Amino acid sequence: MFYIIDILGTIAFAISGVLVAFNKRMDLFGILIIAFVTAVGGGTLRDLLIGDTPVSWMRDISYTYVILASAIFAIIFRSKINYLRTSLFLFDTIGIGLYTLVGIEKGINADLHPIICIALGTMTASFGGVIRDILCNEIPVIFRKEIYATACILGGITYFLLIELPLQTNFVFIIAGIVVIVSRLLAVKFKIALPTIYKSAKD
Amino acid sequence: MFYIIDILGTIAFAISGVLVAFNKRMDLFGILIIAFVTAVGGGTLRDLLIGDTPVSWMRDISYTYVILASAIFAIIFRSKINYLRTSLFLFDTIGIGLYTLVGIEKGINADLHPIICIALGTMTASFGGVIRDILCNEIPVIFRKEIYATACILGGITYFLLIELPLQTNFVFIIAGIVVIVSRLLAVKFKIALPTIYKSAKD
Amino acid sequence: MFYIIDILGTIAFAISGVLVAFNKRMDLFGILIIAFVTAVGGGTLRDLLIGDTPVSWMRDISYTYVILASAIFAIIFRSKINYLRTSLFLFDTIGIGLYTLVGIEKGINADLHPIICIALGTMTASFGGVIRDILCNEIPVIFRKEIYATACILGGITYFLLIELPLQTNFVFIIAGIVVIVSRLLAVKFKIALPTIYKSAKD
Repeated sequence: MFYIIDILGTIAFAISGVLVAFNKRMDLFGILIIAFVTAVGGGTLRDLLIGDTPVSWMRDISYTYVILASAIFAIIFRSKINYLRTSLFLFDTIGIGLYTLVGIEKGINADLHPIICIALGTMTASFGGVIRDILCNEIPVIFRKEIYATACILGGITYFLLIELPLQTNFVFIIAGIVVIVSRLLAVKFKIALPTIYKSAKD
Repeated sequence: MFYIIDILGTIAFAISGVLVAFNKRMDLFGILIIAFVTAVGGGTLRDLLIGDTPVSWMRDISYTYVILASAIFAIIFRSKINYLRTSLFLFDTIGIGLYTLVGIEKGINADLHPIICIALGTMTASFGGVIRDILCNEIPVIFRKEIYATACILGGITYFLLIELPLQTNFVFIIAGIVVIVSRLLAVKFKIALPTIYKSAKD
Repeated sequence: MFYIIDILGTIAFAISGVLVAFNKRMDLFGILIIAFVTAVGGGTLRDLLIGDTPVSWMRDISYTYVILASAIFAIIFRSKINYLRTSLFLFDTIGIGLYTLVGIEKGINADLHPIICIALGTMTASFGGVIRDILCNEIPVIFRKEIYATACILGGITYFLLIELPLQTNFVFIIAGIVVIVSRLLAVKFKIALPTIYKSAKD
């Protein structure tokens, strides 16, 4: 099941990359690179920082196939992608739930502090988009209108609180993943955002 | 001979970095960094992703000398660089032929899938320019008007097709390198580009 | 004492990141990331390039605490930060003195050439700001109006000259650090900059 979620998340991330690349009128090569970077960039940064190389997508060719297929699909059906918006949002949301947990688990395996593990989880889920935006010459959207990170951090905190209790690790993982997904869904549904700090900026 | 090609390619890449840095009116320090990044950025990213550290240019100081000398040369003779345009284009072209093969070889040595090896070869040849453009606050030119990558990919495919035949590895390397160089030269000569996907974008 | 300097430098770098993030009107998450990247980006790049992973800030949680506390402090007292300008400049300056030496020492421990060690020192001290500027979609300020790098390089050269003499290593480190700090202070005081190469650019 984890594997299927991973694939769905990869598809959603890759397609989101293609759409951004369209807006920048990139050519075929640029589109594929942006799709790739969006899908695997967060995990790649995580692997580099903890020294787990060759990085994940190099060791498992199936990511490459999924990303290429998603990108080609999105290019061919680009005028119809809008109909898939809800599905893509759901894939993306369960994807970040899973990616957060993958990052946390890798951090635990490398014996890192819980705060660093949560940072790795958040990075896995959100830095593909950051690298995508940098390559597209934009300030990363996540730095201006935070859309993921709080959900990932909440899920991470949940994990480290529950793991102290006498519960099965798998069960804790699932609860933490659900916390990520539900907080993201609620935030989008009720348009909850981090409090702005610029109220007094008019002065 | 490989060593000489490597040096020529490094010179061409470094000078192309200097020229972009001029356009951005960078100071001496900025120019040197951009020259450096353009020349070694692709190989550095490759080494990081496969975990081959310290990265190549740190282990062989001659890259540093060649890049510094090329950059100083380009700064001093900047008004005359145009006369060298053809030579630089040739150095650059044989450079990407070689770099593609170096990347493929490193991928094979790390036991990676042929597709990943081709990606590493293309990255070695083209991502110095990508990092250069990001540092200069531009959308990487290679993402909009692809100039290298198809040639590198064709050379990589050639390598993995021919290596199945009973031929000497060195011979296969040379043929694959020639494929990169010739496809690039033909593409420039006949202005062949990837098909645009934006025909219908007017709608 | 090194530890205190390291903390003071980290504070100064983190606060400088917060101020840049304010200018870009980033949200809380973006501000924290930029503070973090400015403070640890140079050392992270250094650790990645020499293969010393997990990178430093992941192994010592105190950096994370110092950066979070500095960022929160800077957000709360942002209208008063100007009063601290002189202290922050001093922290920053002694910080780069120390970071240069840390980079050089790591290079020596990895058996790298003196020029590469000086490059690592300069990178440790200055590339946090480069990554900060890239994330903020600016051409790195250090590439246009060089503010650090020459001081770091002078300190590095001092180190490698003096280490040949029969002096204690600790003493050489301190002298080299003082050279970085004093050259930076003099450069700021007397507005010394690298010679511009664009005089003839009007032609």
